Amino acid sequence: MNKKKKIRTSFTCPVDILPTDTIQIGHGGGGKLTHELIANIFAPGFANTRADTKNDQAIVPFGNSKLAFTTDSYVVNPLFFPGGNIGDLAVNGTVNDLAMGGARPFYISAAFILEEGFSMLRLRDIVASMRVACTASGVALVTGDTKVVNKGKGDGVFIATAGVGMVDKKIRCGVQHIRVGDKIIISGPVGNHGITILSQREGLELDSTITSDTAPLTALALPLAQKFGAHCMRDLTRGGLMTALVEIAEDANIGIEIREEAVPVDGAVEAACEIFGLDPFAVANEGKMIAFVPPAYAKAALAALRKHPLGKKAAIIGEVTHAHKKTAIAHNALGGSRILDMPSGEQLPRIC
Amino acid sequence: MNKKKKIRTSFTCPVDILPTDTIQIGHGGGGKLTHELIANIFAPGFANTRADTKNDQAIVPFGNSKLAFTTDSYVVNPLFFPGGNIGDLAVNGTVNDLAMGGARPFYISAAFILEEGFSMLRLRDIVASMRVACTASGVALVTGDTKVVNKGKGDGVFIATAGVGMVDKKIRCGVQHIRVGDKIIISGPVGNHGITILSQREGLELDSTITSDTAPLTALALPLAQKFGAHCMRDLTRGGLMTALVEIAEDANIGIEIREEAVPVDGAVEAACEIFGLDPFAVANEGKMIAFVPPAYAKAALAALRKHPLGKKAAIIGEVTHAHKKTAIAHNALGGSRILDMPSGEQLPRIC
Repeated sequence: MNKKKKIRTSFTCPVDILPTDTIQIGHGGGGKLTHELIANIFAPGFANTRADTKNDQAIVPFGNSKLAFTTDSYVVNPLFFPGGNIGDLAVNGTVNDLAMGGARPFYISAAFILEEGFSMLRLRDIVASMRVACTASGVALVTGDTKVVNKGKGDGVFIATAGVGMVDKKIRCGVQHIRVGDKIIISGPVGNHGITILSQREGLELDSTITSDTAPLTALALPLAQKFGAHCMRDLTRGGLMTALVEIAEDANIGIEIREEAVPVDGAVEAACEIFGLDPFAVANEGKMIAFVPPAYAKAALAALRKHPLGKKAAIIGEVTHAHKKTAIAHNALGGSRILDMPSGEQLPRIC
Repeated sequence: MNKKKKIRTSFTCPVDILPTDTIQIGHGGGGKLTHELIANIFAPGFANTRADTKNDQAIVPFGNSKLAFTTDSYVVNPLFFPGGNIGDLAVNGTVNDLAMGGARPFYISAAFILEEGFSMLRLRDIVASMRVACTASGVALVTGDTKVVNKGKGDGVFIATAGVGMVDKKIRCGVQHIRVGDKIIISGPVGNHGITILSQREGLELDSTITSDTAPLTALALPLAQKFGAHCMRDLTRGGLMTALVEIAEDANIGIEIREEAVPVDGAVEAACEIFGLDPFAVANEGKMIAFVPPAYAKAALAALRKHPLGKKAAIIGEVTHAHKKTAIAHNALGGSRILDMPSGEQLPRIC
């Protein structure tokens, strides 16, 4: 008998893919189209390799430790914006994906894809911002790579960061650990990053107080996981709060109810959303998170968050229910309610 | 006294950077220009964060273990070529960067940057190849990300992979561990990947037997590190054998001497190099490596390599000397010799 295992060279997609099917800009929006792409291609393709498609980081064994591993590519346009640039965005985003798993971020890698003709001075400024972001988060950038593509085959600079962190053995933090009754806490007002990018791109002079909220969330997230037993944490990036709640309700097979008026939104962001016709709940953030915390710890967790500069406006916005599984519902102050739905994806491309 | 550490927000480049300085295609070639970019921007920028700019992977502590961490972005053009495509290239390349550090590769991440309009079927084929490559190498793809850029702002698909592996505590494998007297062993003939890509791009119908050598080198590298005490291993990617030897001579502060005729080159590759006016020693490979092995183990290491299908044509090509530090010299069969030099970088862009 031939004991050599045969390697399967193909896989079955759950839907037929036609020769005319192509990638749309919305496939990168973090909404429905992104989820379809993952469900139809990536999840079945990598089904044999333990890919975690339900959390933004994989938690895997490594020696006697639990290791968190994550990656993200950054294609934000414009590269520089009020409050940050693609460099600190890339470092903070990867730090946050580790922190959301309850991990202490340790190491970062950075792979640059540069377009021929890109300014060396701007590259230096981006690297300088990454250096600052690494220092601020206490992570070490330990390895990297650079490629160059011909003019017109890229867009200035793309950066892919990956991160490695360590999770305390007693921590169980992920969408699969959410329990009915958990309180949902948000760390601060939503929509600032997305509105900043959009107004830059459209050349609008909005209220100058709106800047990106890009920030490392480790200092908020680690106490939530370690002291207050958070069952799940999620940063509110592409697709915003709304996508996070819908994703989590589906993936955890739970119901979610929030009170709309409990969700903090800065006045200037709210005004800008009205101009653009956007729902602030669906707009991207780069320094905001939600946590699912056991009810007994919710008040103490909220108080701890509010003591940190990044969590001053933290609020309890809702809870996990038995009823209406796989559905997230928002109640408004007038007694009405709406079922939250993912944006289809093309609302705000290249936000990160 | 204010104990809060001030974070330095800028860094000093060793050369003045002018507003007119831009990225050239050669900055991505792996040769001199790439080294200048690293020396002038990335190394000083990340000097405070323990970046390892001398090896293709960082070896760092993690719990009680030694962890290897690496990243690479892939921008190869064309995306599909005889012997592989960007998908297996990306997995094998990251597996190899881990293996070259003497690490057993465990986990892989993949970040995709897709161009609007890219064929969904081709994406599926790329994912299928990555799946096969992961299975063949015994690595688990555990986390990923997808972004989409507008048509004309990318080039089909770019993939950034990162990898995590574990290094046995007793293994010391890196450029800093090379000793005078070490024998230099090559695993097989050079130039196949580069010539394959180049002939595809130029639309030339070369000898159809030339295909990319993309392959995982773990099965060759681990015994070299574990049984035969290899002091350093390096896969011969961008810039080929020549760049690897020049880099290592400089970084290890040693002299290197090789015998040109000892380096295996397939006849078809040699012929193609003559047509293109290329030195096969400077052409990229994606499944070839050199190892620096203590002289007492060299013969046994060579015999072990030759037993593996990927190492059948392995050869001892030279050794490490006290003389002419920081210089790599090639002796030819006629008694002549030449100092090896890095290609400047623009020879073969987007080879990986």
